[in-house]
Amino acid sequence: MPISLVRETDVDVLVIGAGPAGLMCANALAKAGVNVRIVDQRPSKVSAGQADGIQPRTIEVFQSYGLAERLLREGNQMHAAAFYNPGQHGIELTDRVPDVTAPTARYPFELTLHQGSIESIFLDSMKLMGAEVSRPMVPTQLELDPTKLGDPNAYAVRVVLNHLYPLEGAPSTEIVRAKFVVGTDGAHSWVRKRFDIAMEGSQTNYVWGVVDMVPQTDFPDIRNRCAIHSENGSCMIIPREDDKVRLYIQLEGRDAVDATSGRIDKNRIGPHKLLEVASKSMYPYVFRTPDEFDWWTIYIIGQRVASKFSVEDRVFIAGDACHTHSPKAGQGMNASMNDSHNLAWKLIYVLRGWAGLSLLKTYELERRKYAQDLINFDVKFSALFSGKPRTEINQSGVSHEDFLKAFQTFGGFTSGIGIHYGESAIVDCRTQSCARNVVVGQRMPPQALVRAADFRPIELQDLLPSNTLFKLLVFPGDVAALDGLAVGLQIIKEKFGHAVDVISIVSVKRPDFCFMDLPPVLRSHWSKWVFSFVIANWLFTTFACRVLCDEKDLRGTQGGNAYTAFGIDPHAGAVVCVRPDGYVGMVAPLEDVGAIASYFASFLK
Amino acid sequence: MPISLVRETDVDVLVIGAGPAGLMCANALAKAGVNVRIVDQRPSKVSAGQADGIQPRTIEVFQSYGLAERLLREGNQMHAAAFYNPGQHGIELTDRVPDVTAPTARYPFELTLHQGSIESIFLDSMKLMGAEVSRPMVPTQLELDPTKLGDPNAYAVRVVLNHLYPLEGAPSTEIVRAKFVVGTDGAHSWVRKRFDIAMEGSQTNYVWGVVDMVPQTDFPDIRNRCAIHSENGSCMIIPREDDKVRLYIQLEGRDAVDATSGRIDKNRIGPHKLLEVASKSMYPYVFRTPDEFDWWTIYIIGQRVASKFSVEDRVFIAGDACHTHSPKAGQGMNASMNDSHNLAWKLIYVLRGWAGLSLLKTYELERRKYAQDLINFDVKFSALFSGKPRTEINQSGVSHEDFLKAFQTFGGFTSGIGIHYGESAIVDCRTQSCARNVVVGQRMPPQALVRAADFRPIELQDLLPSNTLFKLLVFPGDVAALDGLAVGLQIIKEKFGHAVDVISIVSVKRPDFCFMDLPPVLRSHWSKWVFSFVIANWLFTTFACRVLCDEKDLRGTQGGNAYTAFGIDPHAGAVVCVRPDGYVGMVAPLEDVGAIASYFASFLK
Repeated sequence: MPISLVRETDVDVLVIGAGPAGLMCANALAKAGVNVRIVDQRPSKVSAGQADGIQPRTIEVFQSYGLAERLLREGNQMHAAAFYNPGQHGIELTDRVPDVTAPTARYPFELTLHQGSIESIFLDSMKLMGAEVSRPMVPTQLELDPTKLGDPNAYAVRVVLNHLYPLEGAPSTEIVRAKFVVGTDGAHSWVRKRFDIAMEGSQTNYVWGVVDMVPQTDFPDIRNRCAIHSENGSCMIIPREDDKVRLYIQLEGRDAVDATSGRIDKNRIGPHKLLEVASKSMYPYVFRTPDEFDWWTIYIIGQRVASKFSVEDRVFIAGDACHTHSPKAGQGMNASMNDSHNLAWKLIYVLRGWAGLSLLKTYELERRKYAQDLINFDVKFSALFSGKPRTEINQSGVSHEDFLKAFQTFGGFTSGIGIHYGESAIVDCRTQSCARNVVVGQRMPPQALVRAADFRPIELQDLLPSNTLFKLLVFPGDVAALDGLAVGLQIIKEKFGHAVDVISIVSVKRPDFCFMDLPPVLRSHWSKWVFSFVIANWLFTTFACRVLCDEKDLRGTQGGNAYTAFGIDPHAGAVVCVRPDGYVGMVAPLEDVGAIASYFASFLK
Repeated sequence: MPISLVRETDVDVLVIGAGPAGLMCANALAKAGVNVRIVDQRPSKVSAGQADGIQPRTIEVFQSYGLAERLLREGNQMHAAAFYNPGQHGIELTDRVPDVTAPTARYPFELTLHQGSIESIFLDSMKLMGAEVSRPMVPTQLELDPTKLGDPNAYAVRVVLNHLYPLEGAPSTEIVRAKFVVGTDGAHSWVRKRFDIAMEGSQTNYVWGVVDMVPQTDFPDIRNRCAIHSENGSCMIIPREDDKVRLYIQLEGRDAVDATSGRIDKNRIGPHKLLEVASKSMYPYVFRTPDEFDWWTIYIIGQRVASKFSVEDRVFIAGDACHTHSPKAGQGMNASMNDSHNLAWKLIYVLRGWAGLSLLKTYELERRKYAQDLINFDVKFSALFSGKPRTEINQSGVSHEDFLKAFQTFGGFTSGIGIHYGESAIVDCRTQSCARNVVVGQRMPPQALVRAADFRPIELQDLLPSNTLFKLLVFPGDVAALDGLAVGLQIIKEKFGHAVDVISIVSVKRPDFCFMDLPPVLRSHWSKWVFSFVIANWLFTTFACRVLCDEKDLRGTQGGNAYTAFGIDPHAGAVVCVRPDGYVGMVAPLEDVGAIASYFASFLK
């Protein structure tokens, strides 16, 4: 083949795999103007089944990319969880509790929506930026050039891709030279295998079936999330969009597993059989077999984490490629998308020359720790769930109290709200005490505020979009003696202004407060600073957006008590530094803005 | 010209004029599947200026058509109104108050958005249904056929339309035969003049200038609605989308009016001169002249109402064609769109054969009374606003207290929330006492409820979409002895089920309540009734949507107290009948569902 027939392209980032993890990554990169290429081996997006659960924190992340509106419109909301246990004549309702217990969740529910719809949200967003998935394509070779690893802007990775169905006369092979590669190619990741990265952990003995359908039943909790323990097995109900329901059905291993190979044999059991098992455990409620099933599968739960998440700070794996676990707490797609949400801004900073390659090390540090926590949680939760229920006869079984306690203890974790990144260059916990409840390493909690210029109620999280900027939330306390602060911020602005946005949240109530009393540096949009006196609309654009009051709205229904909620002294104030992914990087006292400057200097160029 | 060159078409409804009133009408009709044609003399939609104020009730109406999301995304919100009056050195802040005082407003703010953007919302919605505006076209003849007036389905109106710029070779004339014609062709309405309908009322002596621009100022209330009374004249500030601001500036008549003709002469004054006047009244604040103006105009306020709104129940006028008044309370576009919101469902009912032509008489009855109220309000408000402020020297001037009192007294009216339609075939006030606070003739107020099936918080108004159906809100009290109610509802369902939807709102709290305890007629969707036992998903589609609980959501932040808020006895219950346009048609005690049947029988076939 003449060499000219092989297409060769250079990209900043090549993403291999266009599931939720890959699409989250590609969308974030494209939004930031990065030259990103994304390929997938499937001829089209997922059409049915697969992952469907979206956790409260993930909805916040979607909102930060401007994608939550559609998610909320299309998805089903789960507000309550119901628990059924063996009674006198079949199962009986034991308890109903809020499905989401994390007190600061902005969206206090879980959302269920077919993975294909989630993928569409990203695909449509990317289309607006001119980015599309190349498919069906598979990687066949991937090489790192050891001489280029030191220069972040060198095309250090060479990947050979194969078109599975090339157009007539077009080359079937393509060579991509990339600065970085992200492998989001699923549980059987080619990228992971290419580097012989081990999956550490084990396979369980739990075998589960999954069926998606529109149910016909008289079961009154069919639109709530249900955990059903019966003397005839366990099942879970997950209500879905469009009146659909997903059932998770616990199977006896021998029903579905080939004794010789120890592997699942899908010929041994089908959706009708799965529903028959479910029907028995739901007695005395009637659960008819529908005319058709949307999707079904059977699996054995594996609980494993990849031994490393990156190779030479050039190749990364994310999503199912680095962790596999049970789907029952609805974590999979969330963990995957949040992997690449964590990685994307770091890649952008390195590509822009704003940070060195070492920033990328925090990806594995933060996300591998989280994946390990997830597996540890899953081990406990799966054992509880798959265990036999406690009954009069079986006193050693799992009691409802045990199960509920676990459900609620893990609530902060499973909602994604409690995810806590450990100390690193970008997580500095030293002066935590000046904003006690803004936990450094956790995501910035939501808070209703009132905009100074027009009394409009504003959600703080909506001022923290995933726009690649750090946000300095200045809580100037009682707006006295701010000259020192202004000088300190001016220095940060001069050094790091390209990467930092400033928002002021004052504690003084109107009418005593007038935002014209603040020093200009506290009411400006930094990126507009230099031409602020040229552009006519600067003055009020920035006033309107950047100064908030910690008071109730005019109706008295929202807002107020932000200082208290955040544990900030209303006189002394504080500065909170929020990372581009919405996680708190550090908090500092007002008089020590220099600490913030040092924080930035430790990883920003 | 050979006759074949004149295009002739038959339509159910011809709408003449594609401003906000005409587009609201055409969109509502198209949504209901009516064969509607809409024409306009302008070559394209409004590009700048014109109306911009959207009242709280109008946002609710947009929401009922599924159009509020975009309105809220694009528009600017006014939450506060500020009042400035003469002080020692120029104007001083006297007071700031909530801009919207109506306690039940679902959206407690006014919204400002350029009329062209409003028109785009309708145009894009209509495009999805295949409806477009034919333009530029003007009517030249309109004739009623007296022999056809008795048959609602006869094409009783013949209209000749002229294409202003016909395509090469295409006919310039078109004949449209319509069952009904709606003239929404503005203050100089050709349709109104065709029938010699008089405009009753008078012209004032108030001359006002209007300027749209992005301001450069140090005035701290520039993003709030402001009423400024100074010793150098009065002006109003209306903040707009995209950092724009609209100024209304009171002029001395002699500056802008030609003494001979008594008419405005736009050559005598321009935007620079207008801003110079405004600057003087805003002293000591600086208001610089911007490099460009978005739009400007000058006008004398006329306060007039058309003597009739319809001709032979076949031709209707709506919007500026029937009422002109000052723009200062931001009522114009709202009154116009609500005219056609009131008319549209009535036309649909007659076209579908669900009601006789006499239903259409309620349009003039309801909307002309409202227009007269609007003019009466405007006379008082304009006089107050245009009067000189009270100062030490001018003790007979208008005091801030007078002005504020008027502002707040009129608040219910200007927000659109307080609009109250009088008694008629479709407004039956006889048994008001069984739901004291659900005022018959007013719009159904918002209320947070919790859905029985899945604990999801639901806004009651979102269960009342503008989908051409009446909604029977059944408040069954303590869910005892519902058999009589079920029988009564069954009769209504059999006779009027095509036009009526049933929603149940129970007062019993969970866990005592299970929605399976309700009789089936209280948990069904009527339009799906007949195939409810055939379609698999009926059971839970309808359960999920149609049974609500009057309790707080699981977080305890929304919902609860609906029975109390509506003045309904929690044991006795009540039935509330909401019209397709969201206004309450009647309320009845549970034991007298027969009264509801009689209500429907009085105007439904």
